[in-house]
Amino acid sequence: MTLREGLLLARAGDAAHPAAVAAFTRLAAEHGTPFYVYDAETIREQARSLLAAFGPRFPKLRVRYALKANTNVEIVRLVLSEGLAPEVVSEGEIRAALRAGAKGSDVLFSSSSKSPSEIDFSLEHDVLLNVDNLDELSQVSAAAVRRGTTARISFRINPGVDPDTLHQINTGCSESKFGVHLDGGIARKGYETAKSLPNVVIAGIHCHIGSQINDTVAYEEAARKMLAFVRELKEELGIRLSFVDLGGGLGIPFRDGGTGMSPEELAKALQSIWKEEISLLGYEPELWIEPGRFLVAQSGLMVARVNSVKTTPVKSFVNVDAGFNTLLRPAFYGAVHRVRVVGKTAAPMTLDVAGDVCETGDILAEGRLLPTPEAGDLVVFLDAGAYGFAMASEYNARPLPAELLVDGDEVRVIRRRGTFEELHRGEPGGAEVRP
Amino acid sequence: MTLREGLLLARAGDAAHPAAVAAFTRLAAEHGTPFYVYDAETIREQARSLLAAFGPRFPKLRVRYALKANTNVEIVRLVLSEGLAPEVVSEGEIRAALRAGAKGSDVLFSSSSKSPSEIDFSLEHDVLLNVDNLDELSQVSAAAVRRGTTARISFRINPGVDPDTLHQINTGCSESKFGVHLDGGIARKGYETAKSLPNVVIAGIHCHIGSQINDTVAYEEAARKMLAFVRELKEELGIRLSFVDLGGGLGIPFRDGGTGMSPEELAKALQSIWKEEISLLGYEPELWIEPGRFLVAQSGLMVARVNSVKTTPVKSFVNVDAGFNTLLRPAFYGAVHRVRVVGKTAAPMTLDVAGDVCETGDILAEGRLLPTPEAGDLVVFLDAGAYGFAMASEYNARPLPAELLVDGDEVRVIRRRGTFEELHRGEPGGAEVRP
Repeated sequence: MTLREGLLLARAGDAAHPAAVAAFTRLAAEHGTPFYVYDAETIREQARSLLAAFGPRFPKLRVRYALKANTNVEIVRLVLSEGLAPEVVSEGEIRAALRAGAKGSDVLFSSSSKSPSEIDFSLEHDVLLNVDNLDELSQVSAAAVRRGTTARISFRINPGVDPDTLHQINTGCSESKFGVHLDGGIARKGYETAKSLPNVVIAGIHCHIGSQINDTVAYEEAARKMLAFVRELKEELGIRLSFVDLGGGLGIPFRDGGTGMSPEELAKALQSIWKEEISLLGYEPELWIEPGRFLVAQSGLMVARVNSVKTTPVKSFVNVDAGFNTLLRPAFYGAVHRVRVVGKTAAPMTLDVAGDVCETGDILAEGRLLPTPEAGDLVVFLDAGAYGFAMASEYNARPLPAELLVDGDEVRVIRRRGTFEELHRGEPGGAEVRP
Repeated sequence: MTLREGLLLARAGDAAHPAAVAAFTRLAAEHGTPFYVYDAETIREQARSLLAAFGPRFPKLRVRYALKANTNVEIVRLVLSEGLAPEVVSEGEIRAALRAGAKGSDVLFSSSSKSPSEIDFSLEHDVLLNVDNLDELSQVSAAAVRRGTTARISFRINPGVDPDTLHQINTGCSESKFGVHLDGGIARKGYETAKSLPNVVIAGIHCHIGSQINDTVAYEEAARKMLAFVRELKEELGIRLSFVDLGGGLGIPFRDGGTGMSPEELAKALQSIWKEEISLLGYEPELWIEPGRFLVAQSGLMVARVNSVKTTPVKSFVNVDAGFNTLLRPAFYGAVHRVRVVGKTAAPMTLDVAGDVCETGDILAEGRLLPTPEAGDLVVFLDAGAYGFAMASEYNARPLPAELLVDGDEVRVIRRRGTFEELHRGEPGGAEVRP
C-alpha cells in the first residue's frame, strides 16, 4: 500500500492498520515530530468538486483560493494548478501568490486594514484591491494618482447577514469590522465616491459572511442582498460590474460521519437566485467564490509524539510534543479536531490530549475516548490542513514543525523543520536569513 | 528629554506630550511599524523591587526569571544581569538561557511534556529537571543511566489551589495538566519512587499556581500545603530538600490607577508562614520564586500605525497595522491592554481598535474612548513586554515586528523586523537561515 493509503486509513478511523502504522512510523522516523502532512490528491479532489458543482451552473465563473488557510508556496502552487486564482489578505500573501506563479493582475487583495506600502505594492503589481472603507478608498485613489497608474477596485460589502457559525469567524454580521455596510447607504456612497475619484476603476463587488458555514440559508440571503444592490448600482448610478464575489466559508465536517454543506448544494441554491436576479439586472457579471478551508483542511494531518501519560485524581492526560504553538485552533476557537492514536486499539480510556506549551489552556483535545497510548506513540490530528501551520508560532521557543506533501507513495518536504538557531534570527549575534 | 522620558509620558497617559510625540515619531520613522519597544530601566526596577522585598526576609533566596514571558536574548541577559537565574519550559529556552550567558546548572526546566531529546539535552548541560509526572520520572532516570550521569530533579506539585485568575492561566487547580497531585498520594509516591531510582538526585520541590494573581491568599494556601508536605517528606521518607520553589504569577495592574500585588505584600505574607513552617521542619531550604510577567510586562509597549478609520451604523473602528499575530493576548485571553494615541487629545470617541488579521475576532481593544485618530497616527499598547512578541506569529503572511530596547536616550534593535523572504524559510527555493 502507498503512503497515501496509510494516511487515508488513519483519517477514516483505522490508525491501527499496518499500512497506517507503516506510513506514520516512516514519516516520523525520517522527519521527526511534530509535523504537518498534506495529501495532494485530497486537495485536487476538493478543487475539482467545486469546479464540477459550480462550473456547469455558472458559465462565467472564477474560483479563488483564500491563501490565508495555508500559505505554503507548494500548497498554493498545487491549488492554483487546478485552475484557481489567488485571494489574499496581505502583501506577504501577494508575494506568496507571485512566488507560486500567479500573475499580479489575477490576485484579489482583501483586508480590512491595508497599509500604505501594501496599497503601493498592489498598484505596482496591478493587484485588484478589494476596498474596505471610504478612508482607504481615498488613499487608494491618491496612491494611484501619485504612481500615475489605475487602481482596479471592488468594495467589500458588509451585508448584515448572520450565519450560524462561531462568533470569531462570523465576518458578515453588522457588528464585524469588515466592509462597507449596505445599511445607512455607506456602500452606495462608496461606489458613488469611487466613480468620482481619479485613477480608480470599479471592477466588482465582494462579500464574505464567515467561515465554516454548513447551510445555504445565510448564503442565499447574502446573494439576494448583494444582487439587489448590484441592480441599484446599475439603475441609480449607472455602474456595471464585471464580477460579484460571494466569498468563501464552505464548512467541512469535523466529526466522523458528519457532512458539511456540499459544493453541489451550495451551487444549486445559488443558481436559482442568480438566474432570477441576473434576468432583472440585464447583464451577467462573473460569479466569484473564494474558499480556503474547504480546499485544504481535510488534506492536512498534524502528527505529534506522546511524551508521557499520566493519571491524576481528576482526569488522565496524554502529553504530546506539540501544543497551541503548533495547532492554535483548539485553544483559540475551541475547535474540535479528531484524534487518532497510531497502532493502538486496546483499552479505550478518556483522555485530555495536552500540549507542551506551559499554559493550562494548552489542551489539544479534551475528554476523548482513545485506545490507551504510551510514551513514543504517534498521535494524529485530523482536518489540520487549514489554519494549522498558518497560525503556528514559535512561542515557548519551540521551532516550527515540518510540512510534508504526500502524493501517492512520494513524500516531499515542502518546509523543513524549524531550527533552534532560527528562533534567534535577527537578534544581535543571531542567525541571519539569506535567499 | 530622553527617549525614555517620552515612553514613560505615554505610559502615564500623556501621549500628546511633545517628548512622547518625538520619541514615538522617531522610533517609527527609523524602524517602521509595528514594533515592540522595551524600557531597560523598568526591567531593572522591577527586578530590584523583588530582590528588595524578598532578600531581607529570606536569607536563602533565589529569584528566577520565567523566560517564556519574553525570550529575546537581550532581555534575558538584562534580567539575569540583575542576579536572577533562568526558569525555562523547553530546550529552546534552555538554549536561549545559555546564549544569554547562564550556566546550565543554574537553569531550572519545568514543562508538563518533555521530549526524550529535551531530557537528554538537559542532562548534557546539567540542567535541573522539574519533573511533571511519574512516567517522565522513569524516563529521566533511564536517560541518566544511559548517559552515565546524574539527574538533579524536583517535582512540580499540583497543590489543588484555585487562585482568582483566568481559567486559561490557572495552573495549580486540580483539573490542570500540571504536576503530581498532593491528593491521592501521587506526589508522595513520586518522591518515594525518585529515591529508589538510579542516577536521580532529589534537589527540591516546585509549584506554580497560576499567572496574574493579585492577592496573597492563594499563595499562602499553596505555601502552607507545600511546606507541610516538605515536612512529611522529611519525617516519613527521610528526604531533605535544598529548595522550595513557590512559582511566579505576581500580577501587574492593567488599568490606570490600578495596583497589583506588590512584592512587599507577597514577601510579607509568605514570611510568617515560612518562619513558622521552617521551625517545625527543622532545616531551612532555599526559597525560590520565578516571576515572568512581573519583570517585563510593563517595560514593553507595542506600537502600531493607523491605516484607516471608519464609522459603521453600529460602531467605529480604527484599523491598525498590527493584529493578533502581533499581540495575541486580547483575542486569546480577552486581555485588556491600555491604548494611547500619540499626539492627539481632541474629540474623544468610542472605538474598537481593529487588527489587520482577516478575522472578525482580531480586535486589539474594544469600545475604548480615544481622541479621534486618523490614518498615519501611532497607537501604543501598554504592558506588552510579557507574552507579547513571545506569542507573535507570521499568520496572514505578515513578518514579525521589530523589537527595540531603550536605555535612557539610547535605542538598540534587539531583533530586526522580519522580512517577506523569511516567511518562506525552509520551503523549496525559499530563504535559508545561517548563523
